Amino acid sequence: MAARPFILLSNDDGIAARGLQALALHLSSFADICVVAPDVGRSGMSQAVTSALPLRVTPYSAAGTDFPQYSVSGTPADCVKLALHSILHRRPDMVVAGINHGSNASVNVLYSGTMGAALEGCIAGYPSIGFSLVNRTLDADLNPYLPWCERIVRATLRYGLPYGVALNVNLPRREVQGIKLCRQTLGRWSNEFDQRQDPWGRDYFWLTGTFENLEPTAEDTDDAALRNSYIAIVPTKVDLTDTEMLHQMQGWTWE
Amino acid sequence: MAARPFILLSNDDGIAARGLQALALHLSSFADICVVAPDVGRSGMSQAVTSALPLRVTPYSAAGTDFPQYSVSGTPADCVKLALHSILHRRPDMVVAGINHGSNASVNVLYSGTMGAALEGCIAGYPSIGFSLVNRTLDADLNPYLPWCERIVRATLRYGLPYGVALNVNLPRREVQGIKLCRQTLGRWSNEFDQRQDPWGRDYFWLTGTFENLEPTAEDTDDAALRNSYIAIVPTKVDLTDTEMLHQMQGWTWE
Repeated sequence: MAARPFILLSNDDGIAARGLQALALHLSSFADICVVAPDVGRSGMSQAVTSALPLRVTPYSAAGTDFPQYSVSGTPADCVKLALHSILHRRPDMVVAGINHGSNASVNVLYSGTMGAALEGCIAGYPSIGFSLVNRTLDADLNPYLPWCERIVRATLRYGLPYGVALNVNLPRREVQGIKLCRQTLGRWSNEFDQRQDPWGRDYFWLTGTFENLEPTAEDTDDAALRNSYIAIVPTKVDLTDTEMLHQMQGWTWE
Repeated sequence: MAARPFILLSNDDGIAARGLQALALHLSSFADICVVAPDVGRSGMSQAVTSALPLRVTPYSAAGTDFPQYSVSGTPADCVKLALHSILHRRPDMVVAGINHGSNASVNVLYSGTMGAALEGCIAGYPSIGFSLVNRTLDADLNPYLPWCERIVRATLRYGLPYGVALNVNLPRREVQGIKLCRQTLGRWSNEFDQRQDPWGRDYFWLTGTFENLEPTAEDTDDAALRNSYIAIVPTKVDLTDTEMLHQMQGWTWE
């Protein structure tokens, strides 16, 4: 690694989002930075990729920053793919997504465009981290979190990550008590739709819902850590194989 | 379970796709069916959900079928969520996605809208299966595969699946030699963009690429099974935690 590491940043809230710009600016104190992020907010995009439409890349500038930035007319995963293939002139030392405005703990990791970007960096072979704040308020005070993000980035650069593993880092809403390594909480969303009628009497449905922690007394989960105001780090892998079930299923017959 | 099981079907190629309609019609010989699928093709949508726009539901009819069908103006995961919450009048015994036109083996599972739908059914607590055919030709002959899909559906109804595990089933391009239980191949896409210029001299980028199997000599992977003309079944879980890495990281310091 060069004296100054080179970090690719992306997100899913769009290139103008405060979480991304604040983190990029903070990390630029010790790292070379390139930002490649969606032109508009693309939350909930998971690891979606765009194949039916071509992608456009547009230089972007933000006051007070002097590192290169590009907006892309695609998903977070598209941004990382396109950055690594066509935009960056050298290999990054790390891919970082976020800070996302809203939790990506528990099952949210699966819907998260932020983690879609981080997992994309991971598949491409780079140490990758997604940062998310358990607070959807767009003007939340990010300053207390930035030194923690720096610590986690520096440690990950130092120790490295094995191929196929990224870090899902969630930042608690209240004052940070420290860092906990966790497993992903078993959970799901319920009561997910708000049904309404348009002015012409036709139904439409808004996605909404309530998060349901299916193991509320467990203490080693990301949800538990966050409730206790710890930063939750879950090492998150791209191999979804359930090895235990693979063994169990050897007894199945297929008549 | 009732004498006739009740199966919810979805996909990501859109409600009119042959793979979905052929599978729904075949399964209707022994199961009650409801189809809830995207109004148009939404491949590569992963487990994306739609929160920035409301969703619309429209009844759909296909010649030769008499089970209820609805198209939804959203992603595959939206379809399953909306079906379970607002469309179905009773709980299904199973959620099935596919048959997808194209492979969802190896890392494709992460980008797949078909598997997004199956994992959504899984999170909601239903035995769920995604079927995909390693052949993107839209008029591929599906008939040889339908009895195999039925066998896999019947076995899964019989044995059940634990919470948090769905089946990723890929069907080989050539004549089926049998079924193999596999793990997800470590792989990635490379050379992913085709850069072109529009008539006004501006660049645009098409997603394309070559699949790269990172463990080409392994024999227990889905990619290996498919190359040998076996149906590849990977039990696929929604908990992405890398437990081994979680232990290793206990030694990290965060200075």
